[in-house]
Amino acid sequence: MFDISTYTKRREQLKKQISKGIALFLGNNESPMNYRANTYRYRQDSTFLYFFGINEPGFAAVIDFESGEEIIFGNDLDIDAIIWTGLRPSIAEKAALCGVKDTRPLNKLESYLSQNANRPVHFLPPYRHDNSLLIEKLLGIKVEFQKNYISVPLIKAVVALRSVKEQAEIEALEEAMKMAWHMHTSGMKMIKPGLYEREIHGVMEGIALSFGGAVSFPIILTVNGETLHNHYHGNKMQAGDLLLIDAGVEAPNHYCTDHTRTYPVSGSYSPKQREIYELVLKANKEAIEMIRPDITFREIHLHAATVIAEGLKDLGLMQGNTKEAVNQGAHALFFPHGLGHMMGLDVHDMEDLGENHVGYDKETPRSSQFGTGFLRFGKKLKEGFVLTVEPGIYFIPALIDKWKNENKFKEFINYDKVESYRTFGGIRIEDDILVTANSHKILGQMIPKEVDEIENILKNQP
Amino acid sequence: MFDISTYTKRREQLKKQISKGIALFLGNNESPMNYRANTYRYRQDSTFLYFFGINEPGFAAVIDFESGEEIIFGNDLDIDAIIWTGLRPSIAEKAALCGVKDTRPLNKLESYLSQNANRPVHFLPPYRHDNSLLIEKLLGIKVEFQKNYISVPLIKAVVALRSVKEQAEIEALEEAMKMAWHMHTSGMKMIKPGLYEREIHGVMEGIALSFGGAVSFPIILTVNGETLHNHYHGNKMQAGDLLLIDAGVEAPNHYCTDHTRTYPVSGSYSPKQREIYELVLKANKEAIEMIRPDITFREIHLHAATVIAEGLKDLGLMQGNTKEAVNQGAHALFFPHGLGHMMGLDVHDMEDLGENHVGYDKETPRSSQFGTGFLRFGKKLKEGFVLTVEPGIYFIPALIDKWKNENKFKEFINYDKVESYRTFGGIRIEDDILVTANSHKILGQMIPKEVDEIENILKNQP
Repeated sequence: MFDISTYTKRREQLKKQISKGIALFLGNNESPMNYRANTYRYRQDSTFLYFFGINEPGFAAVIDFESGEEIIFGNDLDIDAIIWTGLRPSIAEKAALCGVKDTRPLNKLESYLSQNANRPVHFLPPYRHDNSLLIEKLLGIKVEFQKNYISVPLIKAVVALRSVKEQAEIEALEEAMKMAWHMHTSGMKMIKPGLYEREIHGVMEGIALSFGGAVSFPIILTVNGETLHNHYHGNKMQAGDLLLIDAGVEAPNHYCTDHTRTYPVSGSYSPKQREIYELVLKANKEAIEMIRPDITFREIHLHAATVIAEGLKDLGLMQGNTKEAVNQGAHALFFPHGLGHMMGLDVHDMEDLGENHVGYDKETPRSSQFGTGFLRFGKKLKEGFVLTVEPGIYFIPALIDKWKNENKFKEFINYDKVESYRTFGGIRIEDDILVTANSHKILGQMIPKEVDEIENILKNQP
Repeated sequence: MFDISTYTKRREQLKKQISKGIALFLGNNESPMNYRANTYRYRQDSTFLYFFGINEPGFAAVIDFESGEEIIFGNDLDIDAIIWTGLRPSIAEKAALCGVKDTRPLNKLESYLSQNANRPVHFLPPYRHDNSLLIEKLLGIKVEFQKNYISVPLIKAVVALRSVKEQAEIEALEEAMKMAWHMHTSGMKMIKPGLYEREIHGVMEGIALSFGGAVSFPIILTVNGETLHNHYHGNKMQAGDLLLIDAGVEAPNHYCTDHTRTYPVSGSYSPKQREIYELVLKANKEAIEMIRPDITFREIHLHAATVIAEGLKDLGLMQGNTKEAVNQGAHALFFPHGLGHMMGLDVHDMEDLGENHVGYDKETPRSSQFGTGFLRFGKKLKEGFVLTVEPGIYFIPALIDKWKNENKFKEFINYDKVESYRTFGGIRIEDDILVTANSHKILGQMIPKEVDEIENILKNQP
């Protein structure tokens, strides 16, 4: 899917953006679980995949912005290793697939950098501790000080490139979407009272693995959708519960998906659940409809917040001037997170490079308000961007109690009414959207999200 | 399953074995995948689980061998965190479940150790880089020198305790075995030509997750069983192939399983496959039969090697004096790995503490011979030990070529005959065994391993 010219072109474009020094890219190594040899599933660094395509531990690479030189560092297997792993392509053969001709053993990286010690070395923020230690060894910068020496110009150059998805990347995303559709619809069809959350979780993650991929993040699958950071799957589902499933695949091509649906365990939404569901769905659809180049994503986020606040006012949960309520952030009691984030090789694309570098700029700085401040991406959209749109409404007991005790926003929130929703839970609906030349495209076949559609499917299960 | 008295008793027993200084136990933290917030499945350190039972990131503990004092360090959630995660038990409540009364915030660990700077601090070998960095911060020992300062007395004391499984641990293992049986037999029943390895892999790992557990190590599931370090699942299975499946679960109680079976993709073994299979099965059964207290596991390993060498001689692949061939290590061309390893909270139990501390002692030192030297456990067995028994026969082209070119063991190996098995692949059969007072017990319901039994099941698939 990605040929030599793709990688060569990406590196050429990168070179145009920085004129001095050397870029150092560290690939990821194996990550130990409960002892060194028992490792988690291998995951290469996404930026390393983007520029070099090599999906194996033990690699590093440099790009010299002055000479144009590109070198991949890695070790060929010796005969003893070949006995256990079988014959594998050489480092030179692997490097040739991304158009890099110069390859050297990994232990030459240190001397290479020493020889260039009088020049700036650009490196990206390390997020794995072994790579932090390697940077300390290579560059002499102690782990705790490294955040002060990461290269903002390199971050900005990488973000500029990776943010705009190429045609081949869009195809890779569409390929991943097929797996996501299968994973989500299979999970949905299992829902029934008496089943444990973990039983659906196992089947869904198993499907991602069956395709030769994996999940792009730990699946959220819970009858307690109001607990936003929830990876517990031990509850038995009961009629009357809502089941929130937020799950994505990482396809074998390494591109990610991210969808959320919220289903009624009994097969039909109660009237109260349906009202809130329809409201979240309205926010989801209207937000998607607004996506096009040159609009800021923050504007869309605030529109979704307004739809939610207006709808909650109709239901008697909010009150007063909706515009003012959203301005001040009162909607965040119910919708405390951001509308969405970029997606690509990472499910939160490039989050390792810093959310503000990816999602904000001088023109659109990040808000510090509770709620809108959690929006990961706020800036102007461009053709080729891929974002999630995932509004939600939650009734979070700890947050309700906190605000109520503080008398916070009592002009906008009808706390008496809110009490009657205390055990409601939470609803989120999420899709993945590509920004096109004049508009947008929803990626993948739609996973059912209309009330009637979902109820028809769930009612017709055996 | 494990109550307060279990944990208290374990720590009391530990305290009897060391008289001076403080033991420092670091729990595991979250492990980042492709950015800091996107983490792998959380896995606590097994020794931390064994003594404290707390299965969450962000904990450390100390035991003072002189005063008997026990302290758990960890942070309670603040209100902001509770909003996202829901209300959780406090550190004090968690510590109470393992009988520890003294709890303190994590940031007090450094000052606690400083106050005790004139006393020895015993710590176990760190295998995660963040914990290496923490030890550097706490004790001032640079990461690369830490291996020189790990506490051998603490390692030996922990190994002595964890090696002998308590009744509750045996019950926990039996619980895990039920999941393993379901996982393996479900995988087996899927086998048919035309399916990809990854499709069975996905279902098997999905089953482990469905039980609320996980796999205890990355599943090996391959038509190339001769490649021992193989985690590729992209091959399409064809009639005539052997499919080797080496997989284990980690149950929600954290105890592990580890079984290998080798099936014929077509539904029946060819005569050539059947001969080798029966030979591996004989080695597996005779080795299991020998297990009892006071016999060394190396003796059993060498018996399995002898069964294999004798059988290969009957097939014309080996020749000469079998006893001498095994003494010199000629069987290792076909059986290059060890017979098995300890199992418990880790699938290779306590491998982080050092294989030689777990598997060898002065009475039984480790061999340096190719093959037998890879045996992870060689010493005398005791009641309560749990080990795997996993003989195998493989035809590894790179190893055959190497030895043949070196004229190695040509008096014992018929290289001409070996050539006719070059593409045979590999067979391994593995079970998990408990050493009992006078004998042994195979853990769990037997996953089918007799030829007729397997062929009957595979032939009757739709």
